[in-house]
Amino acid sequence: MTAGRAGSAQCGATVRRVVADALARVPLRGAPVVGCSGGPDSLALLLAAHAVRADTVAAIVDHGLQPGSAERSQALATRLRERGVAAEVHPVVVTGSGGLEAAARRARYAALRAVRPGSPVLLGHTLDDQAETVLLGLGRGSGARSIAGMREWDEPWLRPLLGLRRAVVHAACGDLEPWSDPHNVDPRFTRVRLRAEVLPLVEDVLPGATEALARTAAQLREDDEALSAWAARLRDEAESPAGLDVAVLRDAPAAVRRRVLRDWLCDVGVTALTDAHLRSADALVGEWRGQGGPRLPGGLDLVRRDGRLSVQRFG
Amino acid sequence: MTAGRAGSAQCGATVRRVVADALARVPLRGAPVVGCSGGPDSLALLLAAHAVRADTVAAIVDHGLQPGSAERSQALATRLRERGVAAEVHPVVVTGSGGLEAAARRARYAALRAVRPGSPVLLGHTLDDQAETVLLGLGRGSGARSIAGMREWDEPWLRPLLGLRRAVVHAACGDLEPWSDPHNVDPRFTRVRLRAEVLPLVEDVLPGATEALARTAAQLREDDEALSAWAARLRDEAESPAGLDVAVLRDAPAAVRRRVLRDWLCDVGVTALTDAHLRSADALVGEWRGQGGPRLPGGLDLVRRDGRLSVQRFG
Repeated sequence: MTAGRAGSAQCGATVRRVVADALARVPLRGAPVVGCSGGPDSLALLLAAHAVRADTVAAIVDHGLQPGSAERSQALATRLRERGVAAEVHPVVVTGSGGLEAAARRARYAALRAVRPGSPVLLGHTLDDQAETVLLGLGRGSGARSIAGMREWDEPWLRPLLGLRRAVVHAACGDLEPWSDPHNVDPRFTRVRLRAEVLPLVEDVLPGATEALARTAAQLREDDEALSAWAARLRDEAESPAGLDVAVLRDAPAAVRRRVLRDWLCDVGVTALTDAHLRSADALVGEWRGQGGPRLPGGLDLVRRDGRLSVQRFG
Repeated sequence: MTAGRAGSAQCGATVRRVVADALARVPLRGAPVVGCSGGPDSLALLLAAHAVRADTVAAIVDHGLQPGSAERSQALATRLRERGVAAEVHPVVVTGSGGLEAAARRARYAALRAVRPGSPVLLGHTLDDQAETVLLGLGRGSGARSIAGMREWDEPWLRPLLGLRRAVVHAACGDLEPWSDPHNVDPRFTRVRLRAEVLPLVEDVLPGATEALARTAAQLREDDEALSAWAARLRDEAESPAGLDVAVLRDAPAAVRRRVLRDWLCDVGVTALTDAHLRSADALVGEWRGQGGPRLPGGLDLVRRDGRLSVQRFG
């Protein structure tokens, strides 16, 4: 659905319907928690969730990253309480590695998860956010997993708006004035540039691309689930304390072997695997002519001996 | 490999190595045919192929779409013959539906295929072309198949340069002056805008994105092959003259069911299937509560009766 000539009331009804449907599908039955930044997506989500379930809790995470954030969070909570919404402010401390965006997200998600343990936590991501996530994954990673985007339900996280365009959601805020986070237009953030520059250009060159990206994400997620299930069965068959049995892996398709190797290497402690590592590892299965295996991150070697793959500390 | 400070000689050696490796891997043993537009990619490919195999044939397709194309094609053939390359001009008539780009490609591929039946036909697509193809597929289609890009070997087509950046290939033309096709900078063509506008911006926002796109294409192709093989086995089990047995399909993952349904519907004559058609068709398997099936393109209905899916003409 696009906003088009649809009025605010119609968009509000659409958002309420998808929120009601999503809440009916999830197994968690506690009071729904809505992560609420005060921005238009989460405000529209909150209004809809509150209309569907009067016990909905608005959880406002104060990241303390901008001057006046504590006051702004309290003011938002007050506004929401005046409309009968149970609103709570949760201050967090943003620390740790991986850049400001990642650290803030970690802190926010930990706080939201703790608001009402056992309850679904609703997040306001839209179809446009999904398209951005797919592009971000495409630019960074490799393979289906990196571009499969966000799931609608990933306990406790529930994203009812993933199928709706941002314009529809924004039109559903009614008379609640959303807050414009200056971080959302700061071009130092990769996601901001994807939103403001890349996706509009892609959409201009390839009309419909935003929806195609979201549709592709959904299909690739299903593809990855099917292949991961196949890989889990194959790994069960191949694995023993002595390592992975090459004979069991050999005849499986490359895509399945790669997933077995990745999951197994991950579980034995090898992180930060690249596509090149996995291709070298897989060559020990499919194209072995006595060569040594790859040197892996974390000071480990992959070795093939007596028809089995195992890892050992090198040196 | 990126061009960087690598000189022309080093780039030439790289291109020759990948061409020699590719020719050694293919089963076809006739004189290699190189599709040669006179542009830098195909000239570099031709020089390398000719260095590896002296019997390489340069096939110059004259599309007759631009003034002077016949003369330009003959001049190119003459230049190549002066260097000892067997060069042939093949005029084609570009007609048919789907736009000029698609019609020209159809005519070109048909002509190239006919040059030396039984020989591999080498094409000059680079890693950058692959990234463009993935983006094009992302914007248009849905699912792994639409973004899996081009294969290195797809008989008789061989694309030895898919792993090399365009800059490396261009640097390998030596003293042969390549021709600049004005179509390659004409922004009416979607691919030109992807090349000139979209990919440079994506690369600026997400450094490394071009290579990540190509890497992802390779992995998604393997994923799709594995799932297609699974789907073919499942279809064998489920199919009879009476249709598809729902009980056989029901417990398979959605990604596999969707492929069975797509391939089967395609074979019974339903073309132009969308993601929405396939989701409705799949709902007859996984979420059936007595509802009717989708109306499909080509005047057909999908129906579920006695535990089997079949198609019938509606009305």
